[in-house]
Amino acid sequence: MIKLVIVGFGNVGQGLVELLLEKKNVIGKIIGPVKVIAIADSKSSISGNFSLKEALEIKKRRGRLPENRLAREVVEEEDYDVLVETSITKIDDGGEGLKYVRTALKRGSHVVTSNKGPLVVAFRELMKLAEKNNVKLMYEATVGGAMPVIKLAKKYLAFCDILSIKGILNGTCNYILSRMEEERMPYGQVLKEAQELGIAEADPSYDVEGIDAAAKLVILANTIYNLNAKLSDVERVGITKVSPEAFDVAIEKNYTIRLIAEASRETLKVTPRLVPLNHPLAIRGTLNAAMFRTDTAGDIVVMGRGAGKMETATAVLSDILDIYDSSS
Amino acid sequence: MIKLVIVGFGNVGQGLVELLLEKKNVIGKIIGPVKVIAIADSKSSISGNFSLKEALEIKKRRGRLPENRLAREVVEEEDYDVLVETSITKIDDGGEGLKYVRTALKRGSHVVTSNKGPLVVAFRELMKLAEKNNVKLMYEATVGGAMPVIKLAKKYLAFCDILSIKGILNGTCNYILSRMEEERMPYGQVLKEAQELGIAEADPSYDVEGIDAAAKLVILANTIYNLNAKLSDVERVGITKVSPEAFDVAIEKNYTIRLIAEASRETLKVTPRLVPLNHPLAIRGTLNAAMFRTDTAGDIVVMGRGAGKMETATAVLSDILDIYDSSS
Repeated sequence: MIKLVIVGFGNVGQGLVELLLEKKNVIGKIIGPVKVIAIADSKSSISGNFSLKEALEIKKRRGRLPENRLAREVVEEEDYDVLVETSITKIDDGGEGLKYVRTALKRGSHVVTSNKGPLVVAFRELMKLAEKNNVKLMYEATVGGAMPVIKLAKKYLAFCDILSIKGILNGTCNYILSRMEEERMPYGQVLKEAQELGIAEADPSYDVEGIDAAAKLVILANTIYNLNAKLSDVERVGITKVSPEAFDVAIEKNYTIRLIAEASRETLKVTPRLVPLNHPLAIRGTLNAAMFRTDTAGDIVVMGRGAGKMETATAVLSDILDIYDSSS
Repeated sequence: MIKLVIVGFGNVGQGLVELLLEKKNVIGKIIGPVKVIAIADSKSSISGNFSLKEALEIKKRRGRLPENRLAREVVEEEDYDVLVETSITKIDDGGEGLKYVRTALKRGSHVVTSNKGPLVVAFRELMKLAEKNNVKLMYEATVGGAMPVIKLAKKYLAFCDILSIKGILNGTCNYILSRMEEERMPYGQVLKEAQELGIAEADPSYDVEGIDAAAKLVILANTIYNLNAKLSDVERVGITKVSPEAFDVAIEKNYTIRLIAEASRETLKVTPRLVPLNHPLAIRGTLNAAMFRTDTAGDIVVMGRGAGKMETATAVLSDILDIYDSSS
């Protein structure tokens, strides 16, 4: 019986619980029975004898869980095999999430996280802590939603030299740029449209300034090149100054403009760049994509939904399975 | 010490040997030392105390290996952990390759193959044989070269419902169709160009009639849907009748034409189809791509070189690592 604690009960946490319910049989076949022994958010929790359905219903109805015990206490007090950490990203200091991850690793529990904060702030520290305690720290969900970029880099391409990785790692920026390409509208107008559609936040700066893409790039680069890079190591230019006229010039030469995150041994940058119209990274809408340039496998591209409740929860679940499925 | 026998010493076999030499250190770190105890092709072999470099040089110089022992005997007589089977695909009856795979599985050795023949002819029989003998039969290299399609389906998406898979699984057809799209030349003329470039064979029927794509589709579908489909179960139309005029009509509506292999619970077909110009499968040149439509992860696309000596050898090596790397 694998015992999970889930911290953070927003979209991703709830999505995971829905997946655990829906996929119970197939999960059982692959890694055996899984039991969620506690769920906590910043203000409330549920533990002991509860059903997952009940937890979802209470959270949806009341906006909180029935017990007053905080996530911090749950992480310290419960006896679990895996901490699933889905709390909100705090890019500056890792926030509470970083504390939860540290606590879990120190007590010898595996951690699966969808939270970029802890990894951007303390990548090497956390990896060493996991190694020292002989547990795994998994984070497929932090980069590219359901796209298997971390597993591709760490496992399938384990023996390859990854010369560079270029990616479209932020769906909001890609939506805005592809709409600008199609309609030749100014940035501000397309941003407003994206906000109305719920694709961009009221304060869009985290996305449009390239911070989100840079955070994902830091995680990818640290993984691939064994670095301890931080957000401040990324050369970063957002998309707010891209003009419709720039698209006129680009399209005339069969190019478009996309926010490209690139990592190599020499480079760590997120900038708007010209991309040939028929290039695999010239994708449209909110899709994400990543292109690995390798020494022996040529270029390998993956593409998929970079965000979304069930997509991100799928990545979290794939990590849980990966910890326990020796045949995987 | 993991002991390999390599059967088939053409492009893929030689590529693997080059990789084993070049990547010795990193392979050692991941799965420990690997030793090739014999290499055989249909007419000759090398075994005992030999160096991999020596084997490559002799084969290149003489076109054969020094000993007269045949592959069949080597597979029966040597004491190996993994048979790497890279002999030429015989799509009708599996050829000698099928016999080698059967022999190795029966004696309790793992098999890694780049040969579609055995899997198209006897998928379920071989899978059961592997299971019964508690060994693995791995075949990433049979579909899409270096693209990790089999691992994506079997592992990362293990708990997902794959509603359908659509792919461009033959680089020759894709090259011909994308050249027809660009130049609006007739099929025969583009085929000739492809033959001159070495992209199409002198007898191109295996590719242009969709047989190669159908063979890969059978392997994918059997893997994903747990079938025992054969080549004859695939509805198949080649590309020889696609006209430049068809491209005129398609392009006018922002579509192109590609040879799409599609599998779902209801469908198994390889046919030229209209694809929107901005669709992830509207790729050009000899690239391959596969799009998995899933229940919880949305659409996931992978793209890469579908053939090539080192690309295919990379897939073979990834399988060998996968057998032994419990952390992978």
